[in-house]
Amino acid sequence: MTDRIALIEQALSGFLPEKDGDIDTVIDSMNYSLTAGGKRVRPVLTLEFAKLCGGEEKNALPFACAVEMIHTYSLIHDDLPCMDDDDMRRGKPTNHKVFGEAQAVLGGDALLTLAFETILSENALKLNGAEKCVKAGRILAECAGAEGMIGGQIIDIESEEMSVGVDRLRIMDRKKTGALIKAACLLGCISAGADEKQMKAAECYAEKIGLAFQIVDDMLDVTSDETTLGKPIGSDEQNKKSTYVSCLGLDECRRIADELTKNAIKSLDAFSGDTCELRIFAEKLRDRNK
Amino acid sequence: MTDRIALIEQALSGFLPEKDGDIDTVIDSMNYSLTAGGKRVRPVLTLEFAKLCGGEEKNALPFACAVEMIHTYSLIHDDLPCMDDDDMRRGKPTNHKVFGEAQAVLGGDALLTLAFETILSENALKLNGAEKCVKAGRILAECAGAEGMIGGQIIDIESEEMSVGVDRLRIMDRKKTGALIKAACLLGCISAGADEKQMKAAECYAEKIGLAFQIVDDMLDVTSDETTLGKPIGSDEQNKKSTYVSCLGLDECRRIADELTKNAIKSLDAFSGDTCELRIFAEKLRDRNK
Repeated sequence: MTDRIALIEQALSGFLPEKDGDIDTVIDSMNYSLTAGGKRVRPVLTLEFAKLCGGEEKNALPFACAVEMIHTYSLIHDDLPCMDDDDMRRGKPTNHKVFGEAQAVLGGDALLTLAFETILSENALKLNGAEKCVKAGRILAECAGAEGMIGGQIIDIESEEMSVGVDRLRIMDRKKTGALIKAACLLGCISAGADEKQMKAAECYAEKIGLAFQIVDDMLDVTSDETTLGKPIGSDEQNKKSTYVSCLGLDECRRIADELTKNAIKSLDAFSGDTCELRIFAEKLRDRNK
Repeated sequence: MTDRIALIEQALSGFLPEKDGDIDTVIDSMNYSLTAGGKRVRPVLTLEFAKLCGGEEKNALPFACAVEMIHTYSLIHDDLPCMDDDDMRRGKPTNHKVFGEAQAVLGGDALLTLAFETILSENALKLNGAEKCVKAGRILAECAGAEGMIGGQIIDIESEEMSVGVDRLRIMDRKKTGALIKAACLLGCISAGADEKQMKAAECYAEKIGLAFQIVDDMLDVTSDETTLGKPIGSDEQNKKSTYVSCLGLDECRRIADELTKNAIKSLDAFSGDTCELRIFAEKLRDRNK
């Protein structure tokens, strides 16, 4: 796994434009967030599904990097003062705190654009052929756009300070985090030339772990608050925004996350290859600690 | 020309996602700027070059729309308070004045993403084939990204309040406005299956009219200020930022714009088809009034 992350990080750096004296600030801004300690969950999924479907991981690498660029740009823009207004991410100052708001907007725009440049690069074309590059780029755009990740962000903004039900949380999370995890899994399948049945199974796996991931995140927010900050569940601050925990309680969340993880693993039965790593991956997402 | 603009505007609307109750705000934000009275300079160039190279305009239409989406998103983000902080554009309130900053950032992101979804759509694929879609998407990403349009924006921001020379202005404008005009012309050629010689000639035409366009813009800023606002050339407010006029004077600007336009028209000699409309287009850009 560590080797694979090193491979992804080396490839990500390789896709960044060279500094030329004129545009160095935006390249620094892109590079800062791209190397700011991401767990590389999405590109690892891309490579793992490529391998599982009988493809070469190295062929799927440009697709994997494109997904990570989209994820990174979305974090930069989400952190902006006009959005979540966050000063810190992963223990480091956010992009706009280091480079200023204008550079953070442009650095995000440039990463979003670079994702498509990468997926349609000479390199990606040589490794995968034009048909697969078109399909991969289209699915990434659909999952990242207004009907996918950006749509989820819109619902999130409009639900701020509102109490919403579990159904609306699910719609939001399916778009906001689920869509890009789905793209990550599908792009690996596409690179390997997977069939429809495999694509469906990958989508099912992605949907389950995506939702489990978000539920566990909400649980960790509460349990880490309980242990480290001492905020009681149900305090005013906790209630401002609905979460799975505020809607369903901790025990029910634990049960659902477990069921989703089991179903995600079950969907891997559709593959004849070694699904061990994807099984462990799903369990680790469920069992992680912050 | 009017028919063609109607065709482009109808196609642009058709590519927007449908409202579903959850993401309507971002679709309204995208639609507002996409229909806010743009002159459609870039998509018209795409269609005209497609026709000139023996292709079908309708095949180039998704490529033309993608270029216009990129142009529109760049205006939304440029107008943001952290960038140029503009309240009005084309006589209407800017996107963030109507929808708020968060929606303007996301609306811009969504249009940028939609550009690639459009260029890689089933529709574009059926009309142009996978090879052309990949090439068109790659060139658009290169021209719109850190080494193209966004790079020009970075240079612009860093040159604010500074006096810079004509060489730096040219580098900035070649990226900031020139790169996307180049993409517009080349995408038409690609859709038509143009050869290398035609691509080179289209690039040359684009480069000349792009620069002429910017020089004329600077001239209009001064002459319209002179006539309508009475600000003398050389006043403090004019001097804050270098322009072609502040560097070279009005007469020299007029001479260069005229020479560039002539050279743009000369580059059309490489084509055997009817270049009349592209010649008139170049002359209109030079002779326009605000």
